[in-house]
Amino acid sequence: MKVGIIGGGSIGLLFAAYLSKLVEVVMYTRTQEQASQINQHGIVLKKATEEREVSRVKSMPFFEWSGTEDFNIVAVKQYQLPSIIEKVNQFKKSPRNLLFLQNGMGHLKLLSRVEAANIFVGSIEHGALREKPYGVSHNGQGVTNVAVYRGDAVELRQLAALGTADFPILYQSDYYDMLVKKLIANALINPLTAILQVKNGALIENPFYYHVIQNLFTEIVYILELKQPEAYWQQVISICKRTADNYSSMLKDVAAKRVTEVDAILGFLLEEAARRGKEAPQLENIFLLIKGKEIVGEAGL
Amino acid sequence: MKVGIIGGGSIGLLFAAYLSKLVEVVMYTRTQEQASQINQHGIVLKKATEEREVSRVKSMPFFEWSGTEDFNIVAVKQYQLPSIIEKVNQFKKSPRNLLFLQNGMGHLKLLSRVEAANIFVGSIEHGALREKPYGVSHNGQGVTNVAVYRGDAVELRQLAALGTADFPILYQSDYYDMLVKKLIANALINPLTAILQVKNGALIENPFYYHVIQNLFTEIVYILELKQPEAYWQQVISICKRTADNYSSMLKDVAAKRVTEVDAILGFLLEEAARRGKEAPQLENIFLLIKGKEIVGEAGL
Repeated sequence: MKVGIIGGGSIGLLFAAYLSKLVEVVMYTRTQEQASQINQHGIVLKKATEEREVSRVKSMPFFEWSGTEDFNIVAVKQYQLPSIIEKVNQFKKSPRNLLFLQNGMGHLKLLSRVEAANIFVGSIEHGALREKPYGVSHNGQGVTNVAVYRGDAVELRQLAALGTADFPILYQSDYYDMLVKKLIANALINPLTAILQVKNGALIENPFYYHVIQNLFTEIVYILELKQPEAYWQQVISICKRTADNYSSMLKDVAAKRVTEVDAILGFLLEEAARRGKEAPQLENIFLLIKGKEIVGEAGL
Repeated sequence: MKVGIIGGGSIGLLFAAYLSKLVEVVMYTRTQEQASQINQHGIVLKKATEEREVSRVKSMPFFEWSGTEDFNIVAVKQYQLPSIIEKVNQFKKSPRNLLFLQNGMGHLKLLSRVEAANIFVGSIEHGALREKPYGVSHNGQGVTNVAVYRGDAVELRQLAALGTADFPILYQSDYYDMLVKKLIANALINPLTAILQVKNGALIENPFYYHVIQNLFTEIVYILELKQPEAYWQQVISICKRTADNYSSMLKDVAAKRVTEVDAILGFLLEEAARRGKEAPQLENIFLLIKGKEIVGEAGL
């Protein structure tokens, strides 16, 4: 099997480092510069144990990608997806397998117009940090969940079989359920930790904050009409526990005055609420507080 | 007229400094130590203009108070009120006029059992900081509103007549309306600024934060069944503008890890909601976030 990975961010590098131990990987990057560095140095993977591994991976810039690999993993940011999809639809021959790894659920509405035999989606529960253009730190070991969005599962199961003990890939039967579970956890953990400026663990250790995430969860259950909410709640608690000492990505984005993923996360839930004619005052306030933080500048806003 | 002021905090000192220019004032303090210092140094009032004035005021500790003054102004914290009221009800002769200056509306339920001819309540819109046991800085010039809670208005109007251009005392005809207006402003400004760690002005300058206080205000209008909400909203905006560069008292309390006034402010609104069988999810979340901040300690909660 030959795997193409599109996107040289932390997740793209992480997948390239692990998968290249078992199959041939081609890494497609936005810049020629990054491709050159990967070709020169390989990909340096730093594990939580501080152990370092170097993988030889062939790399080239996006414009050389033509989708001919057996499997293509798209690991770009949500806002880069439209241009990637446009490119895919201009390939001479449609790619066979495309796996999309974006956060949230905002990208689902783009996938219906992608021309490919099989379309898969995944959700990542790893902590990974790109330390340099060819180096990634795998500082939170978790799992990758994958599911069929459209098409046949056989080749996705083959990809899942490439998972290892330190990089498991779990096949899931229901893509919507898989993504919504992750989305709910993100919706409860990321914005609140960014507003309160606390580690993820505070949300379950502080009884008042715990009460707030319970309240917000109740509103999400109402909006999405979840039939068996317990499993979703357990996932939230489990992620809070597992990442208790971590600062959420949204907290880091707010601190660095970067745009956050709040549109893809809470924005999706608010759109769902509107679509179903439901009110979501609690989620809306949390959403607005983050949007307010995004525009805070020197003016003291 | 002889005025007794009970409580040597910033508001007690402020009233003593201004009123002693026109009438005889006796200042009752919790400690003998503070009374001695006031007797020795007088009360030093620092105005926003940096001008300093010293007023000679007689002072003695609480236990010497017997309520014989023509007018008694109670300027202690809410949590000290029960013991003050117990003392009043043990006086040989009930006091003639009692004015209560506590924040919020939680104290109203205590006032029905106070034995005094006339009971008044007030709300303070001054910024004042106790700089030492006998010194107060008047750093935000505002007004004092006063109204009859029970009894006759004649002597309250006489007190209001002691107001001056730099220390106005405004007679109001409806005590509930007066207190609730202040409470609503406090409920919208104090907790949010403490959560976001911003100056009061940010709530109207940042369009997303502005949207949040609008949402919260809508919930308050619903809970209290306000018939003409515009006047209340205008008061909120006007306080935000007037105190744009200030940090709210709740923000300072949270920063100093002190207990806040959130029970007297949001707690009152949540009790009202419960009493009227209404839901208040937005106010509850803001309340819980402040309660959570109150218990944040070294454990990183």
